[in-house]
Amino acid sequence: MRSLALAMALGLCVSNVWAVEGMWQPHQLPALESQLRKAGIAVDPKELKDLTQYPMNAIVGLGFCTASFVSPMGLVVTNHHCAYGTIQFNSTAEKNLLRDGFLAKTLGEELAGEPTLRVFVTESITEVTDKVRANLTDTMTGRERFDSIDKKQKALVAECEATKGYRCDVYVFHGGATYFLIRQMEIRDVRLVYAPAEAIGKFGGDIDNWMWPRHTGDFAYYRAYVGPDGKPADFNEANVPYRPKSHLKVQPAGLKDGDFTMIAGYPGRTNRYRLSDEVGDAISWSYPTQIQRYKDILAIIDRETRNRPEAAIKYASSVAGLNNGLKNFEGNLDGFAKIDAVGIKQAEEKAILEWAKTNQPAGAAGYDALKAMIEEARARRDRDLLFGLMAQSGALTAAQTVYRLAVERQKPDAEREVGFQARDEIRIEGRLRQLDRRFDPQTDRALLTYVMGEYLKLPAERRVPELDRWIAGEDGAPSAESLAKRLEKLYAGTKVGDLEQRLKWFKGDRAALDAEQDPAIAYARAVFPASMRLEDERKTLAGNETRHRPAWMAARIAYAKSQGREIYPDANNSLRVTFGNVIGYSPRDGVSYAPFTYVNGIVEKHTGKDPFDATQRQMKAIADKRFGPYAVDGRVPVNFLADLDITGGNSGSPMLNARAELVGLAFDGNYEAISSGWIFNEELTRTIGVDVRYMLWVMDAIDGAHRLLEEMGIKPAFAE
Amino acid sequence: MRSLALAMALGLCVSNVWAVEGMWQPHQLPALESQLRKAGIAVDPKELKDLTQYPMNAIVGLGFCTASFVSPMGLVVTNHHCAYGTIQFNSTAEKNLLRDGFLAKTLGEELAGEPTLRVFVTESITEVTDKVRANLTDTMTGRERFDSIDKKQKALVAECEATKGYRCDVYVFHGGATYFLIRQMEIRDVRLVYAPAEAIGKFGGDIDNWMWPRHTGDFAYYRAYVGPDGKPADFNEANVPYRPKSHLKVQPAGLKDGDFTMIAGYPGRTNRYRLSDEVGDAISWSYPTQIQRYKDILAIIDRETRNRPEAAIKYASSVAGLNNGLKNFEGNLDGFAKIDAVGIKQAEEKAILEWAKTNQPAGAAGYDALKAMIEEARARRDRDLLFGLMAQSGALTAAQTVYRLAVERQKPDAEREVGFQARDEIRIEGRLRQLDRRFDPQTDRALLTYVMGEYLKLPAERRVPELDRWIAGEDGAPSAESLAKRLEKLYAGTKVGDLEQRLKWFKGDRAALDAEQDPAIAYARAVFPASMRLEDERKTLAGNETRHRPAWMAARIAYAKSQGREIYPDANNSLRVTFGNVIGYSPRDGVSYAPFTYVNGIVEKHTGKDPFDATQRQMKAIADKRFGPYAVDGRVPVNFLADLDITGGNSGSPMLNARAELVGLAFDGNYEAISSGWIFNEELTRTIGVDVRYMLWVMDAIDGAHRLLEEMGIKPAFAE
Repeated sequence: MRSLALAMALGLCVSNVWAVEGMWQPHQLPALESQLRKAGIAVDPKELKDLTQYPMNAIVGLGFCTASFVSPMGLVVTNHHCAYGTIQFNSTAEKNLLRDGFLAKTLGEELAGEPTLRVFVTESITEVTDKVRANLTDTMTGRERFDSIDKKQKALVAECEATKGYRCDVYVFHGGATYFLIRQMEIRDVRLVYAPAEAIGKFGGDIDNWMWPRHTGDFAYYRAYVGPDGKPADFNEANVPYRPKSHLKVQPAGLKDGDFTMIAGYPGRTNRYRLSDEVGDAISWSYPTQIQRYKDILAIIDRETRNRPEAAIKYASSVAGLNNGLKNFEGNLDGFAKIDAVGIKQAEEKAILEWAKTNQPAGAAGYDALKAMIEEARARRDRDLLFGLMAQSGALTAAQTVYRLAVERQKPDAEREVGFQARDEIRIEGRLRQLDRRFDPQTDRALLTYVMGEYLKLPAERRVPELDRWIAGEDGAPSAESLAKRLEKLYAGTKVGDLEQRLKWFKGDRAALDAEQDPAIAYARAVFPASMRLEDERKTLAGNETRHRPAWMAARIAYAKSQGREIYPDANNSLRVTFGNVIGYSPRDGVSYAPFTYVNGIVEKHTGKDPFDATQRQMKAIADKRFGPYAVDGRVPVNFLADLDITGGNSGSPMLNARAELVGLAFDGNYEAISSGWIFNEELTRTIGVDVRYMLWVMDAIDGAHRLLEEMGIKPAFAE
Repeated sequence: MRSLALAMALGLCVSNVWAVEGMWQPHQLPALESQLRKAGIAVDPKELKDLTQYPMNAIVGLGFCTASFVSPMGLVVTNHHCAYGTIQFNSTAEKNLLRDGFLAKTLGEELAGEPTLRVFVTESITEVTDKVRANLTDTMTGRERFDSIDKKQKALVAECEATKGYRCDVYVFHGGATYFLIRQMEIRDVRLVYAPAEAIGKFGGDIDNWMWPRHTGDFAYYRAYVGPDGKPADFNEANVPYRPKSHLKVQPAGLKDGDFTMIAGYPGRTNRYRLSDEVGDAISWSYPTQIQRYKDILAIIDRETRNRPEAAIKYASSVAGLNNGLKNFEGNLDGFAKIDAVGIKQAEEKAILEWAKTNQPAGAAGYDALKAMIEEARARRDRDLLFGLMAQSGALTAAQTVYRLAVERQKPDAEREVGFQARDEIRIEGRLRQLDRRFDPQTDRALLTYVMGEYLKLPAERRVPELDRWIAGEDGAPSAESLAKRLEKLYAGTKVGDLEQRLKWFKGDRAALDAEQDPAIAYARAVFPASMRLEDERKTLAGNETRHRPAWMAARIAYAKSQGREIYPDANNSLRVTFGNVIGYSPRDGVSYAPFTYVNGIVEKHTGKDPFDATQRQMKAIADKRFGPYAVDGRVPVNFLADLDITGGNSGSPMLNARAELVGLAFDGNYEAISSGWIFNEELTRTIGVDVRYMLWVMDAIDGAHRLLEEMGIKPAFAE
């Protein structure tokens, strides 16, 4: 890393970085042909640009994960952890699919997914920068810019979604330098076909999360269904399996050390082009502060739910999320501690700035303006973090959501706030329904006591009058005592815990909610003007950012081009391709990590206790070496490493070989590389994938998923 | 390991085990010539048998560690952690040698060690089995056997020590099958010459203890001094450096992966020939119980010394020892969890027993008798563990020690209990003096409250009337309440915390102590008869063991011989040789440990906080690559691994190359191999050594110990 830093500081081109760093837009791939060839690709890179051809038209999104078609009958493979919600949704106390796994023996046995489950098939990506940025002027205020862009985006989406069965979104690249309209077919009837037992699909659990060596069978299968007319339809028994234009060929030979591999998928978010000031703030403020807040919140949840298993279950998912966040934040700080991150970014910026001053002065001006914006935001960050954390309260969030929805419904749909349009209502309803399984008044109240208590410590100029007044109640001045009284009243009086009541509010109009006496709704009403003011601040900032960041990014891109380099955009949930090779790594002096793990590692880790509780069936198959054709040197590979560039959202992405055949599924990155979200570390950043041989072996020898193997064109070795 | 277990179960001879397993008595080495040659030795194995020749006459003992002569002027090298007590002894608040290190610029600056510091030069090892076991009959009671053996041993020692300046001891091999009288010259003037700063010598501290990869510069230098007549003498300015008959040649080229290496040293204790029942008891009772007790005690010390830094310092060494013990116990259980230890031992025993039934029936009878003894000891183990833990109380231990000494002094020296003879008095006095630095009444009392409280939970038949009566005091029946009262009185009244008083008791006779009113002495007096009874139980058991275990071991040895195999004895603090090769290992699936670590790993681990607080001087030298001739591929090796068979006591042992030249110092074993004390695991057991190149580089480039380098025949590369 130090050598990389030095190379960057000297403005050198480090050519072998190209083979691993980069979440490329498909249209960029032909320009990378020589790198792709060098890494070992065997197909024509131009084929990867065409979204309507193999393999790209077999790659699909789930909204939060990636997946792919693997049969002509709409069979979809993704990670077990991506299908977790569906498996949980179909589980009952008597029929615990998480614990036992699930295998549909026939199409008829396949299980409907949760109402919000979707498969998105990207059909087109069209640049719309000119349309979105039309009419922008330098004299507009930040808010005016924001609203202008917002309106253009909504219009493009509405026009695109006029055809039924499609979901369209405008994606922002390079902080607003370019915009692309992405049109996806939205398959609404998605069914669970097969998931191994959690002891395989989640082996290692949170302990092994982000860790290598890994032994997780993180895969599961869905099937996409459409109406008899072949068009997306709501769940219906009359629906038929969707017939994709193509599906990935499953290659049971897998990969070996050094082989080419690539991933197409939907990475969520990276910060590779953030300013040195932003990196510095993340290191000195955001991560340490969030770590402290998360620890406090976890301690509160632990304290409030101890000895109350029903309450504990309601927060299990929150606790997992908070712990996951903590590990991420700490991993980032660990990663940053190894390098002079701010120094690297400063050196990078200095080189670009010097070039820009003569070649692209607008970029240099953009840089200065961005720095000023960052400075401005610092003043409000404590407050903004606390307002974000108030969302941990299910009571307030539900009340604020229904109130905002009622307000937005007063407008024409095209003008409604993003997330509160007609197209979003089904998801809002889903979240309101789910609250039953996630809300415990005692814990909710303790969390609010903490967050609002912290809010009360803010200096006067950061306080929000409406919230102060609400906390003060009849006591005149807001204080810990008045807060306790208000929360006492809130939880004693609210019916937000009642699903019928929530759905009534959801259906109600603004007049009804303005007349509502429930103290949660009263809270939402009381702080609504403040929310609007904070939103205005945020939108003004975002509007200004759409002016300055694109100017700076344009200079960065031009600077790179002047050196003959391509620049990929930060991840933004849109379809990307990353390529490289199977390769292990050395996490520290004296230690080497092999690129493959094997089933014997499962036996080593097995303790008999969750999350290392392998099934007896699997332990016996390993002991008996019942490996069939899936073994390499007498043992089945389980997981493997490659130097690909992925992030959250890539989960479930197919890992392809040089001929674009499926040889595994990406499901994690390694701990040492967490800070690669900010600065890519070529020596340490790896993608962790589940090996196709392990998937097939589990399906064949352990779970008897022979019908699915045959459907994918694989002849089972263990069929009776 | 599983394959090894299988091989053992099948009674197969696993030939490559021989190259690594084995703590051989020097006289056994010629018989192992073919294995030594196969491993790569370049000297004649017969040379290793002769204790008066190179290299064996250059290997010395420190009593608790191993060391070696490395110059004609009596320069001795050992581990930093072996010299720790001496460095601490010479440190003051103003002159912190632990923190800063120490280097004598001239002979005159070399610092006298603590009064008990010794260098032992082994001069002869003579088998005395016939003498020790003379007169033993099968009709003797266990105690009679014990006393007979004890008397013979003392007589042999007394005769041997008649020459002044020698220390002699009879060592027991194979549980009493053979006895050897070992005669060692006892050098009493030992001075500290050089120790690197703790940031090098103890880099990684307790966190890295037993861990690989390791980066510890665990070395330091003493010098042995004798009187002008060349004979051992007490410290005196007129003393002169001792001129050893030979000293190890230091080989700055070091070793590379795969090279032959061997160690001569003084391993303390192993349990390789314990019965399956004893292994089972260790797994099911000893380790888990001790883990719980140690954790309780650590919690008490933490509670009592929190916010009292002076008290905390007094227990720092105890806490380190307890933590070390805990890690050891837990490591043993971790190791045992990976194998069917009891099953392996049972299979081994079964094969030997079957052979013995026809070929050596006495061995089979010994086995049965041992099993019965183990069963008998189980009934008392809870009580015995608690009585052992009472020694955690400095107050009681000091009182009991002086009282016992007074009792023993009434006898002729030859009849006094081992540890209480005239030759032992200097060490007893040293311990009594040291108590000042290790005794805090509040903590001491809390520890006794815990241990005696646990004692009170024992069933009636395990209780000791004298202790019960003492605890009961005037309350009639012993209880937690009466215990609290007794301890209140004890600590309010005792002067055991006063050094003058302790030394007065030390010098006093039994009449004086019988008249002493101090409550600690009164306690010692009250429980003295019980101590004698428990000692009798212990000696009876030991006496019986000297009958049965040798019979069983004789059968084991004969069985091995019938298969053409040599058997080495369990470690017993006597001089041994182990040989093998430089080699890394795989601790678990997907992970490989390299056999060498390098200085860049120090930079990686450096946090700026103890125990990862490398000195600026060292960090700069690494950054500047100021490595001189000590680098390999541009970096200096720090520590390395070899598949040698060592245990506690081997610390400081020279690691020798094929030509018996010094290439490093052994200082630790790896965590995965802790349970190898019971069952050797060839795949996982490694010795961790400090590389000679790192030692020389630190001496040359960091600390400027050029005088010493020249003395060892090394030309400094960094001398001004």
